[in-house]
Amino acid sequence: MNLNFLKSLVRPADSRILLLVIDGLGGLPMNAGEPSELEKARTPNLDDLARHGICGLHRPVGAGITPGSGPGHLALFGYDPLEYRIGRGVLSALGVDFELRPGDVAARGNFCTVDDQGIVTDRRAGRISTEKNRELCALLRKAKLDGAELFVETVKEHRFLFVLRGEGLYAAVSDTDPQVTGSDPEEARALEAEAETSASLVRRFVEHAGRSLSGSHPANMVLLRGFASLPQWPRLPDVTGMRAAAAASYPMYRGVAKLVGMELLEAGGDLDGRLDALRGGWDEHEYFFLHVKQPDSAGEDGDFERKVAEIEAVDARIPELRRLEPDVLIVTGDHSTPAKLRYHSWHPVPAVLWSARCRPDPVTRFSERECLAGALGPAFSAVDLLPLALANAGRLEKFGA
Amino acid sequence: MNLNFLKSLVRPADSRILLLVIDGLGGLPMNAGEPSELEKARTPNLDDLARHGICGLHRPVGAGITPGSGPGHLALFGYDPLEYRIGRGVLSALGVDFELRPGDVAARGNFCTVDDQGIVTDRRAGRISTEKNRELCALLRKAKLDGAELFVETVKEHRFLFVLRGEGLYAAVSDTDPQVTGSDPEEARALEAEAETSASLVRRFVEHAGRSLSGSHPANMVLLRGFASLPQWPRLPDVTGMRAAAAASYPMYRGVAKLVGMELLEAGGDLDGRLDALRGGWDEHEYFFLHVKQPDSAGEDGDFERKVAEIEAVDARIPELRRLEPDVLIVTGDHSTPAKLRYHSWHPVPAVLWSARCRPDPVTRFSERECLAGALGPAFSAVDLLPLALANAGRLEKFGA
Repeated sequence: MNLNFLKSLVRPADSRILLLVIDGLGGLPMNAGEPSELEKARTPNLDDLARHGICGLHRPVGAGITPGSGPGHLALFGYDPLEYRIGRGVLSALGVDFELRPGDVAARGNFCTVDDQGIVTDRRAGRISTEKNRELCALLRKAKLDGAELFVETVKEHRFLFVLRGEGLYAAVSDTDPQVTGSDPEEARALEAEAETSASLVRRFVEHAGRSLSGSHPANMVLLRGFASLPQWPRLPDVTGMRAAAAASYPMYRGVAKLVGMELLEAGGDLDGRLDALRGGWDEHEYFFLHVKQPDSAGEDGDFERKVAEIEAVDARIPELRRLEPDVLIVTGDHSTPAKLRYHSWHPVPAVLWSARCRPDPVTRFSERECLAGALGPAFSAVDLLPLALANAGRLEKFGA
Repeated sequence: MNLNFLKSLVRPADSRILLLVIDGLGGLPMNAGEPSELEKARTPNLDDLARHGICGLHRPVGAGITPGSGPGHLALFGYDPLEYRIGRGVLSALGVDFELRPGDVAARGNFCTVDDQGIVTDRRAGRISTEKNRELCALLRKAKLDGAELFVETVKEHRFLFVLRGEGLYAAVSDTDPQVTGSDPEEARALEAEAETSASLVRRFVEHAGRSLSGSHPANMVLLRGFASLPQWPRLPDVTGMRAAAAASYPMYRGVAKLVGMELLEAGGDLDGRLDALRGGWDEHEYFFLHVKQPDSAGEDGDFERKVAEIEAVDARIPELRRLEPDVLIVTGDHSTPAKLRYHSWHPVPAVLWSARCRPDPVTRFSERECLAGALGPAFSAVDLLPLALANAGRLEKFGA
């Protein structure tokens, strides 16, 4: 739903919405005839929500599309991820908690290997260690770029973040990553006239990288791609009229929450810390995003039983959330991460929306199979959750007379 | 679905479609564990339709959006209410059965209270009586507006309809309603150059209103908003190739039907009168819209039992409708009006489509809960009903070879 349209219907109310994202929630049976992770888990508190709320399974992006964490969360916040695209450079910055400012130009960097002729022979430089990466980033930072400030930040293994800061910089710069081995790195070119300065600074940085890394085989060159700047999007507080807060500990989720205008609550590393943060911020805000990472990590490790246990651990905390007395409580995931696949997947994600104004549906158990019969449907669009939450919170006017 | 696309597939057939709109049909339980209005009602005839037809629940506008009657009906007629917007002035005219002509400029008017300084202190003039409104409208009609005919019609309490008729008038005029108290009324301005004449006429009318109402405290000024003209939309008979007729008694529903090109059948105030009208127009038309208001009124009154009884009363008339032998019979509502909420709501609306060509689904009882499992799905888009009706009436060609 168009966010400006939604904004035109918003009215104030004294009500609170809490969105609990269980990362990678959806799963699959390991073998035919067996239960999924969520079906196996004992979840009396989620089942109680399902019994009194409305259930369904959502698609964060579209049929068959496996969402990354960025698009998955944007959809849950009501932002259509096909319309609101986050550039790769910006995603990299979010992922390392880098304080990107408006006008900064960010790109994702790879250390790579080139031969005597400058031909790329390994786009990932043999996946060097993160420690080595740190050493080499220190060399890259020494580049002299007149008129711009340079940031080079280690991400992991062969990956780093590249940021230019200065007046009059634009992100319309072409990738230097040829995407295949056997070619030279491409030269950075301005894709629009106003990006000439940025492109020339990028070329100077790449020259410096080539010289300063020449002795660091296999990581003797860099590739840059996905030049991007902070997007100018409608802010969730402006759209909804709600002061919005995020209790999340991983940089990526904090970053996406900030991108839509949420305030970041000071949250310790574990769920206890985030629940404390939530309680601390409860009076000052109306919209809350609480993130739990562990089920996704267990899924990516292919550890079915650990994912079951992590889901049960979240279930045990639901009563604490209900004691906060949110008017609307949504529990869902940003995508599925079946342990069987050890990866994000395209499978629709179970969701429950609870409020005092829900029309009952037949679902009595929060699971992939039972959610199929719920009032939200078996493949609804995740962006519908925002208007549904606002409606159940008494925060939307009637459309037309 | 795009109406031009639909039109491109239409073929003639000797078949009739009847759409019965039970206003405010959808509901909610008053308390957890209880049935909704429709679930409580004994509806053997609707259940029989459900058993042999296809069921589901539709969203007239979108997830979480509470539809007004105008958008709700447009969606049932196949017009996407987000694309086909009705201006507030036009809606006001429809609501009082005013014969708006192409080129007329209509606005919604409020009597309001201003203080000695001309500052608005009450945007609704203490909700004066409808009788008082009639007196004051007579004063307003005396305004001398060279080059335009003026209509001022009482709506209800503080509300009236304002219409300008003449050559070269355009509706792109800004509201005079400041939307808040403590401000002057705004001056009407042309939002496009061609609307200068209209804006100047509106200003003259407002001056006249200020003078002629000066002794009529609390209704001593007027506010105007939502200037609009009749929209130029595809007509339902042109899109579908069907002569379309409406049997409705309330002005708003007659107005929306007329807006999409339906002929208004002479229908008395009660359902008997409308059924007579339907029978009278049966041979001359192929598409019929029959409107029943009472369940919505009972819902808005918060009278659960009366809504149950009104639904049962409609059910009792279904055999008469079937004796007319429509090829396609659709029964649904334009929105939900749960007695529990005493207002229109965003909850999806139960719908049944019956024809001899339906593929059976498992629904055997026409209720919110059972419709969840129907072939139309738990949250389909209301605009889908038109193409489905046409298909079931044998009126659509195959698309592509």
